[in-house]
Amino acid sequence: MKLLFVLLLLSMSVGVRGAASVADDPRPEKTEKTKVSAEPGSSAAFSGKLLVVPMDGSHWVGIKAIAQELGRRGHRVTVVIPEVSMRMGPGKHYDTLTHPVPYGQADIDVMVSMHGSMVRSDGPFMERMKTKFHHIKRVIDFIHVTAESLLFNDSFISYLEQQEFDAVLTDPVIPSGSLIARKLGLPTINLLRGIPCSLDMKAAGCPSPPSFVPRFFTGLSDRMNFKERLINTLVALLEPLFCRLLFWRFNNIAHKFLKEEVSVAEVLSESDIWLLRIDFTLEFPRPLMPNMILVGGINCDLRKPLPQDLEQWVSGRHGFIVFTLGSMIPDMPEEITSVFIEAFRQIPQTVIWRYAGKVPDNIPKNVKLMKWVPQNDLLAHPGARAFITHAGSHGTFEGLCHAVPMLMFPIAGDQPDNAAKMANRGVGVVLDISTVTTEGLLQGLNELINNTRYKENIQRLSALHKDRPVDPLGLSSFWTEFVMRHKGTKHLKAAVHDLNWIQYYCLDVAALLAAIVLLFVILTVKCMKLCLQKLGKKKKQD
Amino acid sequence: MKLLFVLLLLSMSVGVRGAASVADDPRPEKTEKTKVSAEPGSSAAFSGKLLVVPMDGSHWVGIKAIAQELGRRGHRVTVVIPEVSMRMGPGKHYDTLTHPVPYGQADIDVMVSMHGSMVRSDGPFMERMKTKFHHIKRVIDFIHVTAESLLFNDSFISYLEQQEFDAVLTDPVIPSGSLIARKLGLPTINLLRGIPCSLDMKAAGCPSPPSFVPRFFTGLSDRMNFKERLINTLVALLEPLFCRLLFWRFNNIAHKFLKEEVSVAEVLSESDIWLLRIDFTLEFPRPLMPNMILVGGINCDLRKPLPQDLEQWVSGRHGFIVFTLGSMIPDMPEEITSVFIEAFRQIPQTVIWRYAGKVPDNIPKNVKLMKWVPQNDLLAHPGARAFITHAGSHGTFEGLCHAVPMLMFPIAGDQPDNAAKMANRGVGVVLDISTVTTEGLLQGLNELINNTRYKENIQRLSALHKDRPVDPLGLSSFWTEFVMRHKGTKHLKAAVHDLNWIQYYCLDVAALLAAIVLLFVILTVKCMKLCLQKLGKKKKQD
Repeated sequence: MKLLFVLLLLSMSVGVRGAASVADDPRPEKTEKTKVSAEPGSSAAFSGKLLVVPMDGSHWVGIKAIAQELGRRGHRVTVVIPEVSMRMGPGKHYDTLTHPVPYGQADIDVMVSMHGSMVRSDGPFMERMKTKFHHIKRVIDFIHVTAESLLFNDSFISYLEQQEFDAVLTDPVIPSGSLIARKLGLPTINLLRGIPCSLDMKAAGCPSPPSFVPRFFTGLSDRMNFKERLINTLVALLEPLFCRLLFWRFNNIAHKFLKEEVSVAEVLSESDIWLLRIDFTLEFPRPLMPNMILVGGINCDLRKPLPQDLEQWVSGRHGFIVFTLGSMIPDMPEEITSVFIEAFRQIPQTVIWRYAGKVPDNIPKNVKLMKWVPQNDLLAHPGARAFITHAGSHGTFEGLCHAVPMLMFPIAGDQPDNAAKMANRGVGVVLDISTVTTEGLLQGLNELINNTRYKENIQRLSALHKDRPVDPLGLSSFWTEFVMRHKGTKHLKAAVHDLNWIQYYCLDVAALLAAIVLLFVILTVKCMKLCLQKLGKKKKQD
Repeated sequence: MKLLFVLLLLSMSVGVRGAASVADDPRPEKTEKTKVSAEPGSSAAFSGKLLVVPMDGSHWVGIKAIAQELGRRGHRVTVVIPEVSMRMGPGKHYDTLTHPVPYGQADIDVMVSMHGSMVRSDGPFMERMKTKFHHIKRVIDFIHVTAESLLFNDSFISYLEQQEFDAVLTDPVIPSGSLIARKLGLPTINLLRGIPCSLDMKAAGCPSPPSFVPRFFTGLSDRMNFKERLINTLVALLEPLFCRLLFWRFNNIAHKFLKEEVSVAEVLSESDIWLLRIDFTLEFPRPLMPNMILVGGINCDLRKPLPQDLEQWVSGRHGFIVFTLGSMIPDMPEEITSVFIEAFRQIPQTVIWRYAGKVPDNIPKNVKLMKWVPQNDLLAHPGARAFITHAGSHGTFEGLCHAVPMLMFPIAGDQPDNAAKMANRGVGVVLDISTVTTEGLLQGLNELINNTRYKENIQRLSALHKDRPVDPLGLSSFWTEFVMRHKGTKHLKAAVHDLNWIQYYCLDVAALLAAIVLLFVILTVKCMKLCLQKLGKKKKQD
């Protein structure tokens, strides 16, 4: 039961985590119910047609950046989005194509506001679990209903088929785009942080030896003792089961949509390029496949100038603190809010706090509450002294990119793992949101701001992270264009998908070799026994 | 014995293969016995000091290109070379530092000329084997004597120590540079095609599952049946033994030089960056580690204009053929030479033949013999119709880069593997140099030149190969500078070197799990037996 709960938590987390805490500004993005917008002119030497099937929430940021860039480079980019969504909408350089969904904006707002239940620590335990479970079920239903209303909209899919796209760019955590690509016979580019049951690695045929590749949610490093390796191996052995549970409904959708007995795992194994939003300044070194491209930090360069009203807040002598917990905040209970308010009252820095809930009365003068903050632009400002964050993957990269030490309150999904890694590198401090005290908060902030070790560490890590031959957006665009130009990446895909697991691990070969060795040993022993017996007989005769 | 012979063949092949068949012109490179040449001025933002310990022969090409580029970028680059060598010498943008060796240019010339024995098919078999063995032993002695005269030159090593370099760039197939790096406590950048016993992959901690990663010299692809997987697994199991044999003398040198009980494998595992001269247009897709960078084709962009006398040869209406077999040619027996001459007499194309042996009398008018040819510049010419080559790694990449179909006569080392891969992709034809006939040759050339399939295939492959975000030389230079700037790449090196093979494969964990399962099964069976017995007794009593 607990396992199932973790999985549900997780799929929710990848669905809507950090929905309002990342760089791009959702304000101007009101989804227009255009069917197909104007086609931008082409100026590039090669002009292709790209279909984009994005994911909502923070996952939208990276996909949108690539869609914009490809459009800017002269390709015709078509982004498929539901009629109503959290963040997705039109952009200057791409067309949008909307499909109807059986819910309204109000339903989404309710769902997002319920997300705050994740940090609640008041009330009886069973009651809280029930609320959380109810919320997670709602998120999962939302994801599947959205996917079904896209995939089983026959006229919409037929329309896509007629467009003769060159490739599909998608986020395979919700595999609608991958299924459409298979249906339309198109090559796929995936942009993702990772699939929690390691389905991405499995689909790409990438070895992940449990001896030095720690699994999601274990909190383990790449240096493990026997007990840790045992835990990691058990998790690795259970991963196929996790995957079945996570993609159980999508496997049914796949059968129905593709009209063939094919699993999501098989569909994903055809992916041409995996753009992974990871970076080895944070991840532990691990094997990769030739069609895996690292683009961690793709969101860091998406910068705009700060609005005028924020400029005066960030120009104080003592600098400022950026505080966002993504979509977790709106419903944060009052007793936790007051802990933060009391701590902020006692520090010289100004605080810019992304807070979409009911505004408390006793806000100190140095604190500015905003329903949305330009997080990346704020972190890029030289006055940023600390970043209070839930350690979502986008926020972590933005803090790293701009070298701002972090006070982390991980809540779900990959956040505890991200936070542990940052703390392990001496660039941040981890606290628990449900038990945090004013003293603990003050102590943490004091450490980050006044102990130069944190700033020095994150500056060094940031320099490593940013020192690369091609920036992540450029690299993502290059590989997307590559797939469009060459109609796939057959030469980069490993020949592992015709192998079953016995063949993959050469267990049949091992069995044969073991049998031969055994036979040899048995024969040798028998021979020796015979010789000894004969020798014994001879001696007796003598 | 045969195994040892293959290994010897192999180490020879990596030592001197293709010594005169690659792109850069050895003519102006007479090694000057300067101790330290003029220090070039620095203009770059970061100016470091790079020590380069190269390998002779064709291996020099890539290393020289990086040394030149780094010098051009404003770093102080010092290249260590022996007093006499086959190809190594000064360049415009780096200093050379020469060390004495106990042999002269004449000894090298004799060794190179003896290399032709590799293609000889006349005379009794045992006699030929003896000659080959004698030659290989000479090459191996030459390699070790050169290394010893560098490493045990105490004043030279002390001088290097005083220079306070930031990093060492080397070719680890001959690990002198790696040993110096360890002695001096410097980070290392390796440039190589691959170490035949997969020591590079092992040292970098890179998984190479034998189920889809074919081993050197097996001629297998990434799609294997049971028998092929059995062969591949056996070769993989024997690799550690091959490595021991290959590096046996160097392991002794390492102990003596470093004054510690450390093997070459352990020294190489500290390498910071592996610049691999491979590319997945030729190789089968396989896992890689984060500190492995693919720079196959690094030699293609090293182009100069063709000399005047060659221009008229290449401008004929029917185009021309480039014919080089590297250092194999000088001693090619007359009966093989005449096969080629007779074939060339019957074709309309002109032929530019790299031929350093005794010039035959009956050379047709359309054939030009030259002691050295600007191979890369010729292949880049639009008139090039076919490339007759021994399929060395540099030549293969030059043919691929400039999209010239290849007639291949692989002789040793990785050449049969290279040739098989090119033929498999339909861009060339493989023939055996010791059994080739005029008819076979004509047929092969006719196929390549007049069947458009070959040209189309290689044009498609070439387009794939050249479509990359950063050119190989730029990428090599970037990562060399990266190592110099950050004093290594700790964050990119996998944590596998503290694991023994039992831990690496989690065999201890597997044993524990198997024991638990076994115990569980035994207990269950015992319990059931007991229950059945009791039930039986009860029934009897009833």
